[in-house]
Amino acid sequence: MRISELSRRSEVPIATIKYYLREGLLPPGRSVTATQAEYDETHLRRLRLVRALIGVRGLSVSETKAVLGAVAAHRAERHQVLGLVMGARPVDEAAEPAPGPGAAEVDALIAELGWEVSEHAPARGVLGETLESLRSLGEPVDRESLLRYAELAGRIAEVDLDRIAGTVDPLEQAERALVLTVMMEPVLLSLRRLAQENESAKRNA
Amino acid sequence: MRISELSRRSEVPIATIKYYLREGLLPPGRSVTATQAEYDETHLRRLRLVRALIGVRGLSVSETKAVLGAVAAHRAERHQVLGLVMGARPVDEAAEPAPGPGAAEVDALIAELGWEVSEHAPARGVLGETLESLRSLGEPVDRESLLRYAELAGRIAEVDLDRIAGTVDPLEQAERALVLTVMMEPVLLSLRRLAQENESAKRNA
Repeated sequence: MRISELSRRSEVPIATIKYYLREGLLPPGRSVTATQAEYDETHLRRLRLVRALIGVRGLSVSETKAVLGAVAAHRAERHQVLGLVMGARPVDEAAEPAPGPGAAEVDALIAELGWEVSEHAPARGVLGETLESLRSLGEPVDRESLLRYAELAGRIAEVDLDRIAGTVDPLEQAERALVLTVMMEPVLLSLRRLAQENESAKRNA
Repeated sequence: MRISELSRRSEVPIATIKYYLREGLLPPGRSVTATQAEYDETHLRRLRLVRALIGVRGLSVSETKAVLGAVAAHRAERHQVLGLVMGARPVDEAAEPAPGPGAAEVDALIAELGWEVSEHAPARGVLGETLESLRSLGEPVDRESLLRYAELAGRIAEVDLDRIAGTVDPLEQAERALVLTVMMEPVLLSLRRLAQENESAKRNA
């Protein structure tokens, strides 16, 4: 397809596609004339992934380039690709994770659950910090509640992974996982609010 | 207690407490001299609720006043107080809810679940809009997945309600419910990210 069709199908403006080509985020098309190139489905998929990394994860162009480079090196390993795109795995494996507030509690929880999670997963930091904030507000999360929440999060993750299980291409799967993970957050939080109201009605009936 | 102690225990500056007193968000203390008043535990609790409505729910001073007025009228009904503080129930019951995008799908889901949820619950709007956005991105949420997510949200709400079940005073309970609901959101979302990584590792082992 021509760049105009690539733009139409991806909903990315032609000028932006040209910018990504110059920056090496998108491999060049196959030249047909001195001024025209042909693009294919792999360009479209790569473009969707670039848009998700920049638009959904909020990465810069150079960070996106680093993630794409790391993804290319692990292309055959589906779980590694997912982790890199989702941000759970660092592009530079040699970087030491810096333990923030609550890190010991998070380590203990993950060990108790027996979960296999990268040392670098950013969600560790968010979890530790929020647990610390709740403690300082006088509302610590007791161990039993935390384990119940974690078990339910595990079951939500099963639904999440089931939804992308049919996607064959690892890059496309990673892009869908990223979009679905982030876009489903308001769905899950609003279902929780509605469920709370229903649960409160039941208990006070 | 004096205003200085009320300020220390609530962590609200004295000037802010005086502003809330002038605006009627906080009932006056018992005058002991021409320039001094005594405050008690009910002031402390009310102050915490005001801070949660303004700081956590982001209400204006006049909106907070309206919520407190409606709460006072339903003081004995625990579920009503919770709904008013959480924003699930409108202060003005006569206001017609305006159906936004996805409202029909949300209505159908809530009917299928048999959930008892106010027509005015703002979470309905968030849910409907996000389901519509996902559809327009080419990633509609299939009915089976949505029902599985809703069932899990229901179980999360049970944990949430269990945590505040021991709180006797309805106003204090509503304030805790508001703080816990909002503050737990990053905990739940980061647990989901960690669980996804673990689930992906399991499936690709």
